[in-house]
Amino acid sequence: MSSVLTVWGSPSAVSRTGIVAAHMSDRLEAAGHQVDRLAVRDLPAQALLHADFADPAIRAALDRVEKADALVVASPVYKAAYSGILKAFLDVLPQFALRGKAVLPVLTGGTPAHVLALDYALRPVLTSLGATHVSQGWFVHDQYIHPADGDGPDRVDPQGTAFLDELVDAFADGLDGARGIPA
Amino acid sequence: MSSVLTVWGSPSAVSRTGIVAAHMSDRLEAAGHQVDRLAVRDLPAQALLHADFADPAIRAALDRVEKADALVVASPVYKAAYSGILKAFLDVLPQFALRGKAVLPVLTGGTPAHVLALDYALRPVLTSLGATHVSQGWFVHDQYIHPADGDGPDRVDPQGTAFLDELVDAFADGLDGARGIPA
Amino acid sequence: MSSVLTVWGSPSAVSRTGIVAAHMSDRLEAAGHQVDRLAVRDLPAQALLHADFADPAIRAALDRVEKADALVVASPVYKAAYSGILKAFLDVLPQFALRGKAVLPVLTGGTPAHVLALDYALRPVLTSLGATHVSQGWFVHDQYIHPADGDGPDRVDPQGTAFLDELVDAFADGLDGARGIPA
Amino acid sequence: MSSVLTVWGSPSAVSRTGIVAAHMSDRLEAAGHQVDRLAVRDLPAQALLHADFADPAIRAALDRVEKADALVVASPVYKAAYSGILKAFLDVLPQFALRGKAVLPVLTGGTPAHVLALDYALRPVLTSLGATHVSQGWFVHDQYIHPADGDGPDRVDPQGTAFLDELVDAFADGLDGARGIPA
Repeated sequence: MSSVLTVWGSPSAVSRTGIVAAHMSDRLEAAGHQVDRLAVRDLPAQALLHADFADPAIRAALDRVEKADALVVASPVYKAAYSGILKAFLDVLPQFALRGKAVLPVLTGGTPAHVLALDYALRPVLTSLGATHVSQGWFVHDQYIHPADGDGPDRVDPQGTAFLDELVDAFADGLDGARGIPA
Repeated sequence: MSSVLTVWGSPSAVSRTGIVAAHMSDRLEAAGHQVDRLAVRDLPAQALLHADFADPAIRAALDRVEKADALVVASPVYKAAYSGILKAFLDVLPQFALRGKAVLPVLTGGTPAHVLALDYALRPVLTSLGATHVSQGWFVHDQYIHPADGDGPDRVDPQGTAFLDELVDAFADGLDGARGIPA
Repeated sequence: MSSVLTVWGSPSAVSRTGIVAAHMSDRLEAAGHQVDRLAVRDLPAQALLHADFADPAIRAALDRVEKADALVVASPVYKAAYSGILKAFLDVLPQFALRGKAVLPVLTGGTPAHVLALDYALRPVLTSLGATHVSQGWFVHDQYIHPADGDGPDRVDPQGTAFLDELVDAFADGLDGARGIPA
Repeated sequence: MSSVLTVWGSPSAVSRTGIVAAHMSDRLEAAGHQVDRLAVRDLPAQALLHADFADPAIRAALDRVEKADALVVASPVYKAAYSGILKAFLDVLPQFALRGKAVLPVLTGGTPAHVLALDYALRPVLTSLGATHVSQGWFVHDQYIHPADGDGPDRVDPQGTAFLDELVDAFADGLDGARGIPA
């Protein structure tokens, strides 16, 4: 069993990215891992934007990153890249905060034209944080993500997340053998 | 005469990026342009991070972008990319907020190893915002930027900004002929 | 009237990218510009791959770049980026071969998931070559490009190139005012 | 013991990139792995640039990729990205040619300003090829690489490759546990 931190950065309280992050978190828990869930939006905004490292909530969040064996990092695509709110959180992490950790990156968005933001924008940032392994990631189209409404609670379409689920399962399987990852 | 908005995104009140932005703003004013200066840090943090478009300060900032003929966009390099606070501001702009505008991008940082963040990270975001022209930009090494201290006010080393000054001058010269820019 | 060099890099003699490049060249000529057309595939392969600057055909190609006021640069998307054959040609250009020139970048490909290769892969390379202005570019989906067959000659679907045509027209219009481009 | 293919793409017969690739290959062999070495420059240029899959030398090269458990991929930085000759080789690989394989990327160049080409240009291409794991890579400055001359054979300065050697060792250690890599 490993500990996984799922962190997502969306400005909205009702967030498609958050729904996908919850879906992945549930699946990682079902695979036997311990999952901690962090919505960047719940952190104090001014302390985050002003990089106030003395703020207790910021420090607690950094501790949660440090304690995790692995992370899921999720963001909507805005302006052809990850969100500013996610990046504001990554900015307050220590320079090599992801050293020794495996990371599974995920983006959500309304057009397939933004798929490559994962590999050209988000992945380089995760790599710069020293991540030991950044696995193949996935872009989930908004059309497959349904916020809670009269028809029921938050849910994702299985056809839209089938490949994502495979990635999550492989990620989950790999965590216990994580020492085998080339640094 | 054109109107130029200089916007910079640094989490710190004392900011090397802000010093460079001020230097460029002064130079653009000396060239006869009207310059508006916007530090993203001065915007209300929660409204910005939560993309609260009803917030009067956010709306006023969007108006300033809309009214500008051209922009200088400046950021420190964090985690091999632009800052999250800058991106949080770009995220609240309309999708094609930079259409019809010329943009001069600038980064500051402590290592030349991060120079390419300008062309691989910041420029694609500015292009996605529909900027009509994103000019050659520049990376200013922190060693050339001196916050105010006992020796005097904020200042930049001329040797560290010589080429930047040339870019600013060419940008200033070009603004009045901006209709000549291929869309 | 300006002189424009259209250069495209495809490994195939029958090339969708070449069809798009021809379409754009025809349109630039119709707008009154002088257009030179260069298929990288027609250059001597070994001289190109081995960067043999003494080869007369390579030297002649470099002259054509130098003489152009502006360039159209076109490539298929392979492996989430521009083609190697196009890059092999860009590699033999002098470091600032595009200084003082405007460039219109274009990609073709079979999936919209590759759209961002234009701004994250091709544009940084063109910028590194010192291009004074790299305009908004376009990704043309293969489905809109039809190589010659029993139904007629090479052709593009108007609906697939409508926005590209607008970009070409704006590019053509801007060339004569090119001195107004901010450097 | 695993089989590793070291592939490098330089247009020059005397190549600093080739010297680094040889250094890494020797080290991987010393660690007990079987190393196959492939200079893209030795492949038939026209068959490569024209993507002639019927060419026996091209087919043999593709076989060598398929048989490898892992790859070292090395390139000089040209025009702020990997070389065209390397990319021409990657272009002829099947779409997911690196699935199930670990990859160690390396760049060489004359200025630290190009360091990020590794993570923003080369890594996205390797990821698009389906690589199961692309490890942290390294940029070796040309000043540490010495082609053979009157003073001796090809050699690298230990101070310039100390961290690269650590990456190679970690990569070598990880290969036997490669099944533990999250897909």
